[in-house]
Amino acid sequence: MNTPHTPHASQAAPRLSINRWTCRSTPIQEFLEATAARDLEAVGLWRQDVEEIGVDALKRRADDAGLRVSSLCRGGFLTAADESARAASLDENRRAIDETAALGAPTLVMVVGGITQEDKDIGGARARVAENIATLAPYAESAGVTLSLEPMHPMFTADRAVIATLDQALDIAEGTGSDAVGVIVDTYHVWWDPTLEQAISRAGRSGRLFSYQVCDWSLPLAAEPLFSRGYMGDGYIDFPAITRMVKDAGYTGDIEVEIFNEDVWATPAHEAIGIVRQRYEELVLPYA
Amino acid sequence: MNTPHTPHASQAAPRLSINRWTCRSTPIQEFLEATAARDLEAVGLWRQDVEEIGVDALKRRADDAGLRVSSLCRGGFLTAADESARAASLDENRRAIDETAALGAPTLVMVVGGITQEDKDIGGARARVAENIATLAPYAESAGVTLSLEPMHPMFTADRAVIATLDQALDIAEGTGSDAVGVIVDTYHVWWDPTLEQAISRAGRSGRLFSYQVCDWSLPLAAEPLFSRGYMGDGYIDFPAITRMVKDAGYTGDIEVEIFNEDVWATPAHEAIGIVRQRYEELVLPYA
Repeated sequence: MNTPHTPHASQAAPRLSINRWTCRSTPIQEFLEATAARDLEAVGLWRQDVEEIGVDALKRRADDAGLRVSSLCRGGFLTAADESARAASLDENRRAIDETAALGAPTLVMVVGGITQEDKDIGGARARVAENIATLAPYAESAGVTLSLEPMHPMFTADRAVIATLDQALDIAEGTGSDAVGVIVDTYHVWWDPTLEQAISRAGRSGRLFSYQVCDWSLPLAAEPLFSRGYMGDGYIDFPAITRMVKDAGYTGDIEVEIFNEDVWATPAHEAIGIVRQRYEELVLPYA
Repeated sequence: MNTPHTPHASQAAPRLSINRWTCRSTPIQEFLEATAARDLEAVGLWRQDVEEIGVDALKRRADDAGLRVSSLCRGGFLTAADESARAASLDENRRAIDETAALGAPTLVMVVGGITQEDKDIGGARARVAENIATLAPYAESAGVTLSLEPMHPMFTADRAVIATLDQALDIAEGTGSDAVGVIVDTYHVWWDPTLEQAISRAGRSGRLFSYQVCDWSLPLAAEPLFSRGYMGDGYIDFPAITRMVKDAGYTGDIEVEIFNEDVWATPAHEAIGIVRQRYEELVLPYA
């Protein structure tokens, strides 16, 4: 690696991982080098990266850059009522589990899927998620990885994830009876929850707090609300408070910064990662 | 009233109330006449209407049209940390309570307010809401009206309402010790909640289910997400299921249709109200 280090980044940023999608417009090799140049410790990768260059090459490149892979994004989409769609989804999730293991990542992020306008039975969709997650759990155990259920902001309940709260995710995880199923706390998705502190604490006690992701809730919402995620400090989220809850729940793993934001994507990766690191050191790390 | 009745609207639509904001581009008198012409029983009004023509004239016009006033929208905005802002807000809410009573409406809708980017302490804001609602409760009791706390979709937690769930609203309502404080179930705001059925049932048992509002969750979200509310049947919400929950909780009051949607606003009021009535008779009334 010959990427020049800035004076700013002369020490490691403990536990800081940057999610690939934060710099999705940057080619993968450049992204890995820029991350290493800022002395981050890890990256969160996506299945699109696997598809692009293959899982072995991706693992080698992360190793060469000296980076852990903190998570793979994403499995899930488990709400289809149709039996052949269900079987195809389970197969796809098994492949995603294999890739997670091959990358040496501890956990696979699960975005569980939404409902359709034709079938508005959200209770039914939620029951199918629980059943399918239970089906996948032994496979994840054998592969030595965990499944992290992602409660998504209720703005996405219809089209992306019928899991809307941490408690609901924990109910499903605990219902599997498998230690390999747990949850992600992503500040963007859960910050509004009046029962957040109790739910994070429960995740810790249950041994199921597998990932902590941070980014801010910025307003006004972008035309595509998924892209309203902002740098920590640019929005409304109290990072010290939530980070303390996560710490008090016993979490000691990587902290991933995942920002979907068109302005960030237009910023050169080394600059964006520099801002991420600075905000992390200011608003997250001291409380982690 | 000489407004012609369509053949469609030859019978009353029991318990159906249309919220003023569904037809906010229509002048108030025309709105009241169009509502009566469709044989609806009630209207939900806004303080803007009171400001425009005065509370006595507004009451008289609703009476002349043969319409009950099912609610007045809105009080609230009780999160300010500053003491003089707090006092001003309490005064404003007392005026809103007086107007509710003068209109003969049973309840005042409370949108409790958000947080600021400077003060991200959502716990503090929530505590101030609870305190201020408790302060207002005796005034509402004396006036013979109720305060309906509106849990708003978590998409609005930052800028409009730190009450994000029915259970949270019920905690605050019960905490006042006053029977005059309860909740609204608005499908748009609460449909995603995995604990919805239990929370609605709790509201019933607690004697605090004061209002039921319906409209659909339409996608894609509008640029201003407040305006993504759609006609029942146009989105993802299961109205029979939620209406049954509300019925099982013992609710027998008016059912208000409140749609904020630029396409609806561009539709002539009598047409929009006709669509509302038809969807109500198909998707809500049989289950209510």
